[in-house]
Amino acid sequence: MPIVVRNTPRTDLDIIAGLQELGVATIHEAQGRMGLLASYVSPIYRPARVAGNALTCEVAPGDNWMIHVAVEQARAGDILVVAPTSPSQDGYFGDLLATALMARGVRGLIIDAGVRDIASLTEMRFPVWSKSIFAQGTVKETVANVQVPIVCAGALVHPGDVIVADDDGVCVVRRNEAAEILEKGRAREVREAETRRRYAAGELGLDMNNMRPRLEEKGLRYVDATSQD
Amino acid sequence: MPIVVRNTPRTDLDIIAGLQELGVATIHEAQGRMGLLASYVSPIYRPARVAGNALTCEVAPGDNWMIHVAVEQARAGDILVVAPTSPSQDGYFGDLLATALMARGVRGLIIDAGVRDIASLTEMRFPVWSKSIFAQGTVKETVANVQVPIVCAGALVHPGDVIVADDDGVCVVRRNEAAEILEKGRAREVREAETRRRYAAGELGLDMNNMRPRLEEKGLRYVDATSQD
Amino acid sequence: MPIVVRNTPRTDLDIIAGLQELGVATIHEAQGRMGLLASYVSPIYRPARVAGNALTCEVAPGDNWMIHVAVEQARAGDILVVAPTSPSQDGYFGDLLATALMARGVRGLIIDAGVRDIASLTEMRFPVWSKSIFAQGTVKETVANVQVPIVCAGALVHPGDVIVADDDGVCVVRRNEAAEILEKGRAREVREAETRRRYAAGELGLDMNNMRPRLEEKGLRYVDATSQD
Amino acid sequence: MPIVVRNTPRTDLDIIAGLQELGVATIHEAQGRMGLLASYVSPIYRPARVAGNALTCEVAPGDNWMIHVAVEQARAGDILVVAPTSPSQDGYFGDLLATALMARGVRGLIIDAGVRDIASLTEMRFPVWSKSIFAQGTVKETVANVQVPIVCAGALVHPGDVIVADDDGVCVVRRNEAAEILEKGRAREVREAETRRRYAAGELGLDMNNMRPRLEEKGLRYVDATSQD
Amino acid sequence: MPIVVRNTPRTDLDIIAGLQELGVATIHEAQGRMGLLASYVSPIYRPARVAGNALTCEVAPGDNWMIHVAVEQARAGDILVVAPTSPSQDGYFGDLLATALMARGVRGLIIDAGVRDIASLTEMRFPVWSKSIFAQGTVKETVANVQVPIVCAGALVHPGDVIVADDDGVCVVRRNEAAEILEKGRAREVREAETRRRYAAGELGLDMNNMRPRLEEKGLRYVDATSQD
Amino acid sequence: MPIVVRNTPRTDLDIIAGLQELGVATIHEAQGRMGLLASYVSPIYRPARVAGNALTCEVAPGDNWMIHVAVEQARAGDILVVAPTSPSQDGYFGDLLATALMARGVRGLIIDAGVRDIASLTEMRFPVWSKSIFAQGTVKETVANVQVPIVCAGALVHPGDVIVADDDGVCVVRRNEAAEILEKGRAREVREAETRRRYAAGELGLDMNNMRPRLEEKGLRYVDATSQD
Repeated sequence: MPIVVRNTPRTDLDIIAGLQELGVATIHEAQGRMGLLASYVSPIYRPARVAGNALTCEVAPGDNWMIHVAVEQARAGDILVVAPTSPSQDGYFGDLLATALMARGVRGLIIDAGVRDIASLTEMRFPVWSKSIFAQGTVKETVANVQVPIVCAGALVHPGDVIVADDDGVCVVRRNEAAEILEKGRAREVREAETRRRYAAGELGLDMNNMRPRLEEKGLRYVDATSQD
Repeated sequence: MPIVVRNTPRTDLDIIAGLQELGVATIHEAQGRMGLLASYVSPIYRPARVAGNALTCEVAPGDNWMIHVAVEQARAGDILVVAPTSPSQDGYFGDLLATALMARGVRGLIIDAGVRDIASLTEMRFPVWSKSIFAQGTVKETVANVQVPIVCAGALVHPGDVIVADDDGVCVVRRNEAAEILEKGRAREVREAETRRRYAAGELGLDMNNMRPRLEEKGLRYVDATSQD
Repeated sequence: MPIVVRNTPRTDLDIIAGLQELGVATIHEAQGRMGLLASYVSPIYRPARVAGNALTCEVAPGDNWMIHVAVEQARAGDILVVAPTSPSQDGYFGDLLATALMARGVRGLIIDAGVRDIASLTEMRFPVWSKSIFAQGTVKETVANVQVPIVCAGALVHPGDVIVADDDGVCVVRRNEAAEILEKGRAREVREAETRRRYAAGELGLDMNNMRPRLEEKGLRYVDATSQD
Repeated sequence: MPIVVRNTPRTDLDIIAGLQELGVATIHEAQGRMGLLASYVSPIYRPARVAGNALTCEVAPGDNWMIHVAVEQARAGDILVVAPTSPSQDGYFGDLLATALMARGVRGLIIDAGVRDIASLTEMRFPVWSKSIFAQGTVKETVANVQVPIVCAGALVHPGDVIVADDDGVCVVRRNEAAEILEKGRAREVREAETRRRYAAGELGLDMNNMRPRLEEKGLRYVDATSQD
Repeated sequence: MPIVVRNTPRTDLDIIAGLQELGVATIHEAQGRMGLLASYVSPIYRPARVAGNALTCEVAPGDNWMIHVAVEQARAGDILVVAPTSPSQDGYFGDLLATALMARGVRGLIIDAGVRDIASLTEMRFPVWSKSIFAQGTVKETVANVQVPIVCAGALVHPGDVIVADDDGVCVVRRNEAAEILEKGRAREVREAETRRRYAAGELGLDMNNMRPRLEEKGLRYVDATSQD
Repeated sequence: MPIVVRNTPRTDLDIIAGLQELGVATIHEAQGRMGLLASYVSPIYRPARVAGNALTCEVAPGDNWMIHVAVEQARAGDILVVAPTSPSQDGYFGDLLATALMARGVRGLIIDAGVRDIASLTEMRFPVWSKSIFAQGTVKETVANVQVPIVCAGALVHPGDVIVADDDGVCVVRRNEAAEILEKGRAREVREAETRRRYAAGELGLDMNNMRPRLEEKGLRYVDATSQD
């Protein structure tokens, strides 16, 4: 039978703030190119960037009842993560539910399905990453789990994992690895700043990373174009 | 043989103005969650919102001849609704045809195919909801029906039905139901304003709609997280 | 074995400047409705418009090594055109590589795969047309060809062909036809300006192009709506 | 409110038998290239061919309740046509419902959604054309219309229209046009038999249809390959 | 760093034999409509049915190296479950790897990517459920995890979970729930046999499940067709 | 203006016979993992295997006129390769055109669009690889090129290149490389037979290819499962 798990542990909001600064691409590299949601989950407006604790919610196809249940479990700093138990593109969520979530300090929504009231959500600056934009309404007939581990857009998300979302998509960081990933990500950022400086000065990745011998070993050959004019 | 039906009845423009104010999500709910076009038909720019009388036009795949025929049938307040007789993503429509339509008071285009000259259309503020953006040009060889009932993006549209389109997508309202749906939609809007006010004040949908007994009856159980730290 | 072809011929930058002014839809018509890349390759921000010499680059799926090789071959006025040897939506390219390319005068990127660091690329005004936006990182293990003819998003592109890209998509023009297409495109633009003026004045395409006899010959009939009120 | 329409008129089963013989491609041509359902609706096994009276049924997404309601309205010679009110790929239908339909003389199923128990349905020789094959079960919570006009896979279907389905897909014929289309289709079949005989004998379509002058007029030129060896 | 976990626990093969008999649709219902992989994973030939212990394997996009690593971990009764770390449709697997797996008693393959050598695999009766059929070969450059929990086609799979696959798709059953699900599934099968018997005898689901009062309560109305002939 | 190129050179039919024996996967590997058409082009029946000289044909969207032109250019041993100038899934081809092609010794059809009359084509054993199966008919209004290089399903095909197609898909081999690829493919086949024999005897790829040191170098670690029972 479906359950709602109360009082699940969260990740510290200071760590989350640090991860938000790094952004999705850097974090995903810092954890070994893992943790991305599928690229079909995209922001309803750009630019957008947010991070928070995952508040997980299963829903039946075409049925948004459990989102109302999830609202009660929300805490400040949460991001609602919704996955249907079967594929759907219906509009599970609009400006009314966004109002309810904002009243509880929720920072955004990730949903492997559709949303509506895009104009209002954009005006309210309530960031949403969704699979589709569709006005199709939903019913309230079927119960499902809240605050249990779920698979959302191909990624496993536990309650209290960190969700980071920006213009590039959405990434999940395990709660017990968040501090370590923050550290690795910051180190990566320092290295990238240096790379950027050198690229801007005209240096080549081929030289900076000493790629030429390995390219040759793999058989890459350079030839000159025969004059074709 | 294909026909062009002249002088089809339209819906009153005052009713249409009212429906435009309500928007797609509200109207679709007011008519029992019916009337949406498929979500793959999306606006070429946001925000955009428009309503008008459907001017229906079939086209052959990769052939925009009948759009020229449809232009002549247009009246002020119309929205051109184009459906290919077989799937196509070609660019049937650009800024020249938009100029011709605007000269006749047409308010926008819904097309289950592609458009081009996006930059100009955006500058002209001629709103378009399309399946694709594609520069691919079309021929003028095959005739088809104008101002007959058509299926566009999965929805049946009659000439003179009301088309409402906004950032959430496109909805069709039957001509003889438009006044009633306007009334229902306005009533719905009043209720939603009250709901919004109460959500903003922190009330829960669970309580406002007395959902708890029914959730329990369906077997939903609440449990506490075992400490995981 | 994979090769890198050096010193491939380019198209004259003055011709390219002319083609850029015309835009994708006009150029594609001027060359007989040929040369478009598939419509799934779209700009990461709008409005965007650019033209340049194709700098072609094959990459293995999930492997961006050859982009580093391509950077060295870049000249001012080039546009990097990347095609994976098997379908991929990974994020092959971000702000670091854009920095390296801009340092060499490269004007933009066309990629039949994914990109990331969208927010930075937008801020830098480095225009990109891609199949997807995805933070997924890539490896550097497999070599492939640079500056050879490639198929990108369904279109054959040779090094030094002209790439024109705008809000409508991407078009390729053969190097040895570029001057002729420029001329044809300009003639077309003149005709279109006249058509636009006449449409705006309320003239009909049916009359301007004398379509009525041919419509009748194809069997199109006009009927009046039976009163339905 | 949803309704079930009882005792809707059917098309004569003799006419239907004639249409079944003709098959989908011929019928669709006979009615002016109209009436096809989208190509994503395909048979669960091949070869399969059937024709019957449309018994139309709307269903909510992920909810097969109304199929049980539709079973009671079935008559011998019907084909059940199911369309969800919002896109779904769930498995609405399996061998149990097929057993119930076969007991009432229903000849097959067309569904713009998913089915399951494919192995059993194949063994029972109950033909199904569906959008997907998916074991995902459904609930019984939401009512919808039965035996009203519906849009299924992009085609408008009225109760009592003729459905013809074979290895090429699905076609609908209006009830009041069925006799005429049968006649046209048979005439077409006679012509095609003659064409087939002449093609088999080596005649060219170019000559049989006198296409050469028109090809020349459209500008097609013949050139010889320059020797490339 | 990537790991290979050796000697992971398996589910008892007798329980697995029982689950295989039940099939995917029944098992998925027995566990509360949970556990299905996405419907795009389909068998390369039908009919096919198999069950076994999940042997999980991550692979890099376009890189099948880790499948060779997984072969060594295989035990009789296993089913190899492969998920790429980024979407791919490449042909990771063909008849050579199938030969290696069969030599170790592996019963089949589930892969969220592509396979090739379909004709040989079909002849060998090595059942495969895949996302695509594609001859595209892969490299051996990047390491990843073997025998850790993975998400495959949207479903979480642990090593030693039970995989059941048939013509309807693929389902996963948790190792520690397998015995209970077997029991529930068998009970369901008994009920379904009785339902089938009654349906075949012409009884209606409406009556057998006493649905009429609830349909009426939800507002469903029955009306008679107005004569339309 | 469109052209038809007559008397294009072909590849020797003996070489083609050899390539047909090797099959798509082997050939594609032998030419460095190049030359595959996109995986969405699949056979209308399995098993099927064929090879022949490419007879290339462009068609307008929804217009099969040029196929009639191509028939005249056909020679025994050809395979017709058709690409629309803009995406289409229409049924360009059916049993009548297959009859005409078979009368001229054409061995099969590759089409980046749709076909119909599947049941007849299967019975006639005329093999087709297509993007879709769709009864939708086409017109004869627009001319295009025949026997020029075309891009079909993402692959560049010249007249007289070798097309090899089987259950795994379609591969193209350049005419002037065909003999060399045949030799390489045969060598590969010999090696694969030996590998198959050793795999069947229980040897591991890890050992046969000495992969263990390189896996270790890349950081792969082996750990034992902690007892979880």
